[in-house]
Amino acid sequence: MIPEAEDAFGAAMYACWKGDDARLVIERDDGLVDLDSYDYVAPFRRWPSHERAAMRHVRGRVLDVGCGAGRVAIHLEPRGHEVLSIDVSPGAVRTAGERGARDVRLLASSGERRADGPFHTIVMFGNNAGLLRDARHAPWLLLRFAGVTGGDGVVLASTLDPYDTADPAHRDYHRWNRRRGRMGGQVRIRARFQRLATPWFDYLFTSIGETERLVRGTGWHLDDVIDGAGPTYAFVLRKS
Amino acid sequence: MIPEAEDAFGAAMYACWKGDDARLVIERDDGLVDLDSYDYVAPFRRWPSHERAAMRHVRGRVLDVGCGAGRVAIHLEPRGHEVLSIDVSPGAVRTAGERGARDVRLLASSGERRADGPFHTIVMFGNNAGLLRDARHAPWLLLRFAGVTGGDGVVLASTLDPYDTADPAHRDYHRWNRRRGRMGGQVRIRARFQRLATPWFDYLFTSIGETERLVRGTGWHLDDVIDGAGPTYAFVLRKS
Repeated sequence: MIPEAEDAFGAAMYACWKGDDARLVIERDDGLVDLDSYDYVAPFRRWPSHERAAMRHVRGRVLDVGCGAGRVAIHLEPRGHEVLSIDVSPGAVRTAGERGARDVRLLASSGERRADGPFHTIVMFGNNAGLLRDARHAPWLLLRFAGVTGGDGVVLASTLDPYDTADPAHRDYHRWNRRRGRMGGQVRIRARFQRLATPWFDYLFTSIGETERLVRGTGWHLDDVIDGAGPTYAFVLRKS
Repeated sequence: MIPEAEDAFGAAMYACWKGDDARLVIERDDGLVDLDSYDYVAPFRRWPSHERAAMRHVRGRVLDVGCGAGRVAIHLEPRGHEVLSIDVSPGAVRTAGERGARDVRLLASSGERRADGPFHTIVMFGNNAGLLRDARHAPWLLLRFAGVTGGDGVVLASTLDPYDTADPAHRDYHRWNRRRGRMGGQVRIRARFQRLATPWFDYLFTSIGETERLVRGTGWHLDDVIDGAGPTYAFVLRKS
């Protein structure tokens, strides 16, 4: 969980929902600063095209991992789906709840229990494939996901190919990551908003090939890839 | 001078002029992050109203202190004024020069020489009254300005009243500043853009009363104050 006093994500999300021009600053451990451009409160028609397309695979009970402002539940619940929305940010949970998501809980991505399921669909949008974190954590988390889903379970995740860039800042970073034994796109970042800063955390971006290799032996296989704008894409995992 | 490898200001300014959506992140030493909202390449008609109004007092040869992207020279030179534009940022000097400012030099706010003058008008826009820095530096810099101007010299500066806010982050900061022997509005900040971060530096915001007291005994007096939007204002100094 992110402590309330460090919840830059949640505070920015809540401010954004309240109509402020709130922009989250993302700081990377090589000193890079960037602005979070994600629209957490976008209605379905303004979601990135690859996420909209991936939604065709949603079935049954849904687990939304890293729910943010709750946009997945807010779209799916009126359409008859049960959705458990989870996030480590107290401000995100508050925002998603106030916006109308029905079942929102302050839980880590691995915090759901078998009793909360079984789920048919696990959603990781807003680049939340990043929550797979690193080469050790990813298979562990995917195994947990396998445990709370039935045989027809599906994972829908969005990410971007980190190597699809000419920016020397990113290319240098990938090289530095490999030198220190990390995957190229395994970014160590924190979010800042006003006086709040989250703890530093790892977040994983993978090429399609890396995604396929990460998934091997976890009970899942890479079933489909949906191209998005620029380096972004969504992927669909199904039980092997 | 800001070393090239730390010139977040100049890199953002140059990117902005080249049409990128470049936003500078300002980091304060209490952990606050904010986005620089200043439009460095605005044409005169889009300058803040208090700066436009202060321009009525421009006469003769002009020293533009902290010239940024050169907007003061670009406005005044076609109208017959000689302008020496100075900035500590190599990227700002490059941007101002490429945009057409005629005499741009990489110099600190105290770097101008008597031989460069005499100046009739010294401009410190874009909140560059902040370059007065602190209660010790301000009178020293104003005395230098007195030395490079004639008897009819004028200083035109823009700033904001730091105490005209209800934001607890700022109110806490003013209190913390006073506890550590600084003026309330003496902010310690650095600018960040992509992987660049400037050194930390002090930048001074003052109420009108504080401005008046700072100026005493420097050869200048506070001759006029021009209200701007919200807490912003411009002030006019003339020789005593």
